Amino acid sequence: MGKYSHIQQEAYEANMQLPVLGLVLYTFGNVSALDRSLGVFAIKPSGVPYNELTPGKMVIVDLDSKVVEGTLRPSSDTKTHAVLYKEWDSIGGVCHTHSTYATAWAQSQLDIPIFGTTHADHNTVDIPCAPPMDDEMIKGNYEHETGYQIINCLNHKKMDYKEVEMILVGNHAPFTWGKTAAKAVYNSAVLESIAQMALLTQQINPGAPRLKDSLIKKHFERKHGPDSYYGQS
Amino acid sequence: MGKYSHIQQEAYEANMQLPVLGLVLYTFGNVSALDRSLGVFAIKPSGVPYNELTPGKMVIVDLDSKVVEGTLRPSSDTKTHAVLYKEWDSIGGVCHTHSTYATAWAQSQLDIPIFGTTHADHNTVDIPCAPPMDDEMIKGNYEHETGYQIINCLNHKKMDYKEVEMILVGNHAPFTWGKTAAKAVYNSAVLESIAQMALLTQQINPGAPRLKDSLIKKHFERKHGPDSYYGQS
Amino acid sequence: MGKYSHIQQEAYEANMQLPVLGLVLYTFGNVSALDRSLGVFAIKPSGVPYNELTPGKMVIVDLDSKVVEGTLRPSSDTKTHAVLYKEWDSIGGVCHTHSTYATAWAQSQLDIPIFGTTHADHNTVDIPCAPPMDDEMIKGNYEHETGYQIINCLNHKKMDYKEVEMILVGNHAPFTWGKTAAKAVYNSAVLESIAQMALLTQQINPGAPRLKDSLIKKHFERKHGPDSYYGQS
Amino acid sequence: MGKYSHIQQEAYEANMQLPVLGLVLYTFGNVSALDRSLGVFAIKPSGVPYNELTPGKMVIVDLDSKVVEGTLRPSSDTKTHAVLYKEWDSIGGVCHTHSTYATAWAQSQLDIPIFGTTHADHNTVDIPCAPPMDDEMIKGNYEHETGYQIINCLNHKKMDYKEVEMILVGNHAPFTWGKTAAKAVYNSAVLESIAQMALLTQQINPGAPRLKDSLIKKHFERKHGPDSYYGQS
Repeated sequence: MGKYSHIQQEAYEANMQLPVLGLVLYTFGNVSALDRSLGVFAIKPSGVPYNELTPGKMVIVDLDSKVVEGTLRPSSDTKTHAVLYKEWDSIGGVCHTHSTYATAWAQSQLDIPIFGTTHADHNTVDIPCAPPMDDEMIKGNYEHETGYQIINCLNHKKMDYKEVEMILVGNHAPFTWGKTAAKAVYNSAVLESIAQMALLTQQINPGAPRLKDSLIKKHFERKHGPDSYYGQS
Repeated sequence: MGKYSHIQQEAYEANMQLPVLGLVLYTFGNVSALDRSLGVFAIKPSGVPYNELTPGKMVIVDLDSKVVEGTLRPSSDTKTHAVLYKEWDSIGGVCHTHSTYATAWAQSQLDIPIFGTTHADHNTVDIPCAPPMDDEMIKGNYEHETGYQIINCLNHKKMDYKEVEMILVGNHAPFTWGKTAAKAVYNSAVLESIAQMALLTQQINPGAPRLKDSLIKKHFERKHGPDSYYGQS
Repeated sequence: MGKYSHIQQEAYEANMQLPVLGLVLYTFGNVSALDRSLGVFAIKPSGVPYNELTPGKMVIVDLDSKVVEGTLRPSSDTKTHAVLYKEWDSIGGVCHTHSTYATAWAQSQLDIPIFGTTHADHNTVDIPCAPPMDDEMIKGNYEHETGYQIINCLNHKKMDYKEVEMILVGNHAPFTWGKTAAKAVYNSAVLESIAQMALLTQQINPGAPRLKDSLIKKHFERKHGPDSYYGQS
Repeated sequence: MGKYSHIQQEAYEANMQLPVLGLVLYTFGNVSALDRSLGVFAIKPSGVPYNELTPGKMVIVDLDSKVVEGTLRPSSDTKTHAVLYKEWDSIGGVCHTHSTYATAWAQSQLDIPIFGTTHADHNTVDIPCAPPMDDEMIKGNYEHETGYQIINCLNHKKMDYKEVEMILVGNHAPFTWGKTAAKAVYNSAVLESIAQMALLTQQINPGAPRLKDSLIKKHFERKHGPDSYYGQS
């Protein structure tokens, strides 16, 4: 057992959930799992099919995106993961997919309106869509800048990454995060469902109103507030 | 064998149908099964994944929402189930999901028009969408009030819960019921299919007319009337 | 081996394809297989779940809809099947489903325009949608009249049932037929795919033109003309 | 082991991926694999169900569409494959499907706009839709002309078949190609996903802008440029 095998196992299991949940075609997604005390995370190797993954193939990378252990090249999105881990000190997992509906919203460059309690069970805001970055940043350290594009968008909208664990990167696709890799994947699946329902809602009723504040508050707090009563304590 | 094992088994089997039928993501749904003579129902524990459920984990609750047996916390929607059982004396099962198309209609706050015989095979009305409740009720005993929101909507529309076994709760999601838990689940699956077809019908022909009365009557009665000839007698 | 076991087996296998192909929810569909020399067909029993079907449960009915053999009640749509067999002397199978997209077109009361070669590989016309029948006919011998509604629609449009093996019954759902029960089921699956693609085509380009005549003719004849070269001869 | 068994095996495996990926209904698709040194390709026999295919049933055809080995009739689209192999000297596989969303775009006779990085990861242009061919060509050597319709469309748009490995044939369906049969199938699956996302993007935001040039260039080059860093080198 290597010193990183616990996060390799966690990253492996989280990555393997992506095809099960229908969130990826081929290799269009990646999940990482962090050990903050060791200052490293395990991430999917780039372009390796899911059915060829093993825990041992997960690449160990530090928060400056340097490979610490592993013979395979890490995901091309590794720098984005590293930036989020470096800047946000209470997350332990990051997930990126090109899931169909969330990606369509990202391509539309619009926030996903909060239309119902399925959404409010998870957060209290329209899911933000970060604008595409400037050409200079794209030509530069692109995946590194993508991380800051995400962080800056949340900061600009005065959102807390601990409360809003999902974002759309304009023209690109969703990123989600959480305390663990499994939670990050959960957030990607929830986001895809919310994204599909929001489009359908607008198709049924183009004038559908946003959820009212009292319901937003009620549903979020019954799952996440100090007096939450969802799940087992 | 405990004295509640029959309804635990019934609730377990009904809950396990939800992922099979594609009606739930993660734990976003719950079914209960009532024994009216004992005055209790068995309901899914809150937030427990379907693949970890067992009949013994079903929580036994009375019609005032008090837990009678079980170590797990019951579904956060338990009070809604309890109200429906208490007020409607001929139902034996209640089902709640966030299925994609029915939830989108709920979020759109529109009734689902009766467009065809698939719908008329099950009831004779537009599927009602109960309006979101007042802020005071939301802040109060929310899930309890949700039950009355459902009952009041049917009463207001002069609908009989024995004939209309499904409703949309505005901004939230569908609830269905029936003589058994299995029938409540069946109604949720039928509602999801009707909801999808209704949206597609409006997309194909925005001026699509409602089903005419003679066809509504014919199809409902061939399945449910005194001279019904659908199924095995 | 009973004297009808060959058509019971054929009807059984054809019915079992419906859930495999995703064309039915619960029992919302039925297929029959005819032995014209015996003047009877085998059809699904009404309301029996697919996973409880066996060849021996297929009900034997004559062309006047009289049950000849079997203890179960035949499909509620039996009379429609009987009429088609009686009036059209070269068909050997009939299939009825409430498949999602074809049913949505039926509910929209519009013909499905011929937009591409997938459609032209199977016939050369817009898929007809028969109008809902008169109230008097609905109140009368409804399923019997449904058969004539189908036949009259083809006659009125001067279509040949041997070339156009599928129709939508307005406000209701599709019926298909063919030389065998298996071919009738095939036509239902093809119709569902054509119906979905046609809606998507109109969503992408509301002004999408019908397929031009030369392509309609080419594709139909390469599969069905005297010099056809599709498939194995 | 016959002298063609290597391409029969390759073609067989590639064809069998089509139903797994959800790209075909029944036999509505075909893949071929070329051995350029032998001047022949292996292609699916016409109209044979996927579950009856074996490597030995793959038909061996030369670049003039003459059958070299095999007792079955090759795919009716064989001449289109042959033309592409003859004119484009660095491809080794061709795939044709009637996948739902790509076919709907083909029926709409519109190019698929490049809306996001999922698209730019694979090429840098709107996916071209070749216009339907002239009536004279349709009446003539239709499948042969289809090959030239594809080639002429790319030439007219000054696109390189080595960079743009997918096209829509107007009113018909997609064709894709690549260095191997497996790559051609991969391109068909990617095209279907891009086609679905593009429609959804326009439904969410009818004014959604094309991806900007800097992002197109960045994403294509990180996967395909001289300094690419996607996948394992």
